[in-house]
Amino acid sequence: MSNSIKLAILGLGTVGTGVVDLINDNLDELKRRSGRDIIITEVGTRRHRDDIDPNIVQNSDLMATAASDDVDIVIEVIGGTTLAKDLIMHAIKNGKHVVTANKALLAEHGNEIFAFAEEHNVHVAYEAAVAGGIPIIKVMREALAANKVEWLAGIINGTGNFIMTEMRDKGRSFDDVLSEAQELGYAEADPTFDVEGIDAAHKLALLASIAFGTPLQFDKVYCEGITGITLQDVNYAEELGYRIKHLGFAVRRDGAGNDSDAGIELRVHPTLIPQDALLASVNGVKNAVLVNSHPLGQTLYCGDGAGAGATASAVMADVMDLVRVLGSKNSTDQNNHSHHVPHLAFIPDQLSDTPILRAEQMTTGYYLRVHAYDSPGVLADITRILSDSGINIDAILQKPAHKVGQVPVIILTLPVVESQMNLAIKEIEELDTITDKVVRIRLDELA
Amino acid sequence: MSNSIKLAILGLGTVGTGVVDLINDNLDELKRRSGRDIIITEVGTRRHRDDIDPNIVQNSDLMATAASDDVDIVIEVIGGTTLAKDLIMHAIKNGKHVVTANKALLAEHGNEIFAFAEEHNVHVAYEAAVAGGIPIIKVMREALAANKVEWLAGIINGTGNFIMTEMRDKGRSFDDVLSEAQELGYAEADPTFDVEGIDAAHKLALLASIAFGTPLQFDKVYCEGITGITLQDVNYAEELGYRIKHLGFAVRRDGAGNDSDAGIELRVHPTLIPQDALLASVNGVKNAVLVNSHPLGQTLYCGDGAGAGATASAVMADVMDLVRVLGSKNSTDQNNHSHHVPHLAFIPDQLSDTPILRAEQMTTGYYLRVHAYDSPGVLADITRILSDSGINIDAILQKPAHKVGQVPVIILTLPVVESQMNLAIKEIEELDTITDKVVRIRLDELA
Repeated sequence: MSNSIKLAILGLGTVGTGVVDLINDNLDELKRRSGRDIIITEVGTRRHRDDIDPNIVQNSDLMATAASDDVDIVIEVIGGTTLAKDLIMHAIKNGKHVVTANKALLAEHGNEIFAFAEEHNVHVAYEAAVAGGIPIIKVMREALAANKVEWLAGIINGTGNFIMTEMRDKGRSFDDVLSEAQELGYAEADPTFDVEGIDAAHKLALLASIAFGTPLQFDKVYCEGITGITLQDVNYAEELGYRIKHLGFAVRRDGAGNDSDAGIELRVHPTLIPQDALLASVNGVKNAVLVNSHPLGQTLYCGDGAGAGATASAVMADVMDLVRVLGSKNSTDQNNHSHHVPHLAFIPDQLSDTPILRAEQMTTGYYLRVHAYDSPGVLADITRILSDSGINIDAILQKPAHKVGQVPVIILTLPVVESQMNLAIKEIEELDTITDKVVRIRLDELA
Repeated sequence: MSNSIKLAILGLGTVGTGVVDLINDNLDELKRRSGRDIIITEVGTRRHRDDIDPNIVQNSDLMATAASDDVDIVIEVIGGTTLAKDLIMHAIKNGKHVVTANKALLAEHGNEIFAFAEEHNVHVAYEAAVAGGIPIIKVMREALAANKVEWLAGIINGTGNFIMTEMRDKGRSFDDVLSEAQELGYAEADPTFDVEGIDAAHKLALLASIAFGTPLQFDKVYCEGITGITLQDVNYAEELGYRIKHLGFAVRRDGAGNDSDAGIELRVHPTLIPQDALLASVNGVKNAVLVNSHPLGQTLYCGDGAGAGATASAVMADVMDLVRVLGSKNSTDQNNHSHHVPHLAFIPDQLSDTPILRAEQMTTGYYLRVHAYDSPGVLADITRILSDSGINIDAILQKPAHKVGQVPVIILTLPVVESQMNLAIKEIEELDTITDKVVRIRLDELA
């Protein structure tokens, strides 16, 4: 066993450069903690960089770097799901441990990648893939290892949270804030992944698997973005004591005695949460994850969800864990899962096939905005329909008419199965007195 | 290597019973995650308990249980610093790994206990000793392992936070809330450890060591309780946009070019923090720790700081970590520190002797409440003294006279070295127009 740990970095963009900088800045700290010299021996980069230590080999053949004899751990930070996958599989095949920040790749191909890693007895570590610098993977896999997770709710996309924060704080429109986020570099030129919730869904898929011990099932995440959120709804929500946040939820449902309804809800959507919940005060590009587990109860983890420093911190935390694995002489024992943390928190053959519920089976509270002609009986009609559908009303706010003769009615409901709500809304929209489609946003008390 | 992991629990109070309950509740979860059967083989308890599984040996000879051949891991949850210490040393000597929730014992004797454990090549795990169920030890030792910690600030005593929360929310007096906390079981009959900050100082000593890689130095923690906080100051603080919380701070100071001032501040005291800081919204018996590290930036960890479930969660997280160590065949190698997390986060021979600063050397902002006769020139006198002492004023609030002819003047200052502030306050108190001692509370922007 050599005393130094040799790293290769694939990709020298923002995150790759952040890792180089971290190692330069904290070299002494890393050695004092690990007892080892942690050195970058090679970087895989298409374009030669003159500002990199000349002792570090720069290789434009990334596949060669991924398999280099002079490397213990391969750090993949090029992103994407094609070349990145080939590189990781090649590194694994060559007995390298891998650290990656690639949420999309793992959410979509993680089951295959982790199985391949187990076959080759190496680890694929991915702290940086979810919530940036917040150590939520370590927390869920290790710190909460003795708990049964009941649900989690997370602000896991910084761009979306920045937009929702600006809309509320400054009364700005969605489009206006999105443009600024793009200028600030928070949002991509094509913001689809962020504002449609796909990025959050990638992260949620990973969180849900390690929460419940289920295989990765990104394709089953119900996903709703924030493009439809208007300032009007943001303000009505505030008036009622709630705040709209874009959240990912993973919830275990026991099915209330009916096994066919038991399963896991995986959903990303705008959500009204109580203003006095800590999560409601997580603003700007910050991320946060709230986990409710038994017997611990609720714990919250908050910090920067992106950026060079935060991501490099998570990447290097994985490296520091792997240093301990590399220090353990029997780390190459086959089939000995007892001395490392399983990729998905649970021993691979112990993953469960608990079903992921379809959207219509999911249970949440709702915020409804109904526009009606200001005629007698309209409120009675709406409340009767909800009551007949077994939907309990928690609050009603009837605003003065803002168009001639039309009144917006805001209704908050207690939790109800979506299929029931769909029927009730259909019935409401069929009323003669209703002028528009009913606007609905989910609501969660986080209790 | 047997497939089961055998635990002994020393003490069956609230926490010990919580551990028994957790294992009963989450048996399947523990096995699915660890691949091992985790069983309690023996409990050390003075009083026989009829409600415990008859397969578990109940032993009133706790020293015998601590050394039992049928035990891999000893969980010490009896508390105190005398018998608990003997039991832990005895367990270590007999090659047992130890899990403890005992902050007082570790803060006062941790250096000796950890050295003894290293000598005998066993681990003493202590997640439950700080902030209950919040995994702050794991986070700081492992998740932030690649960072350089700059400072941390924590609400690490639930009783104190409950009292401060109730005073602010309900306008109640300190004594009134303390009585209720005692009735609710949040505070001991002798509340000294909680309200004088000693419990928080124990935890801070542990956090500071793993943040900075210094030996435990509980005796050097500056410690101020909340018994002197009045409703008046709580309200003035709120009026100025701040909230008073009882916090523990560990801060690395570079000494501004002067090495004699470089060192670490360890201090527990009431503190004004901005109302819009997340930490200001951590209410009731909740705990939270805010860590500022490079390059990660600020991360916050929040949850229950006490109680059977939260503490059992932390104890069993340690057990789950030890299960992996026990699964590693070379865990008995001497002097191989590379494959386990060092007790104090840094390799023992890499601990630094950075000095702990004396109170007079510490730098903080201040809230000052000065009572003066309402005579011309008094404000000019006060501000001149502060200005002459090089103290910058951030805000002033002059309230209408509440006693005949006397006005309270509230002043917020920018950070200043305590020795400077001491001199300025002495000078202010010597003014003829000043009627009372100056009240001072520290202030931190958490920026």
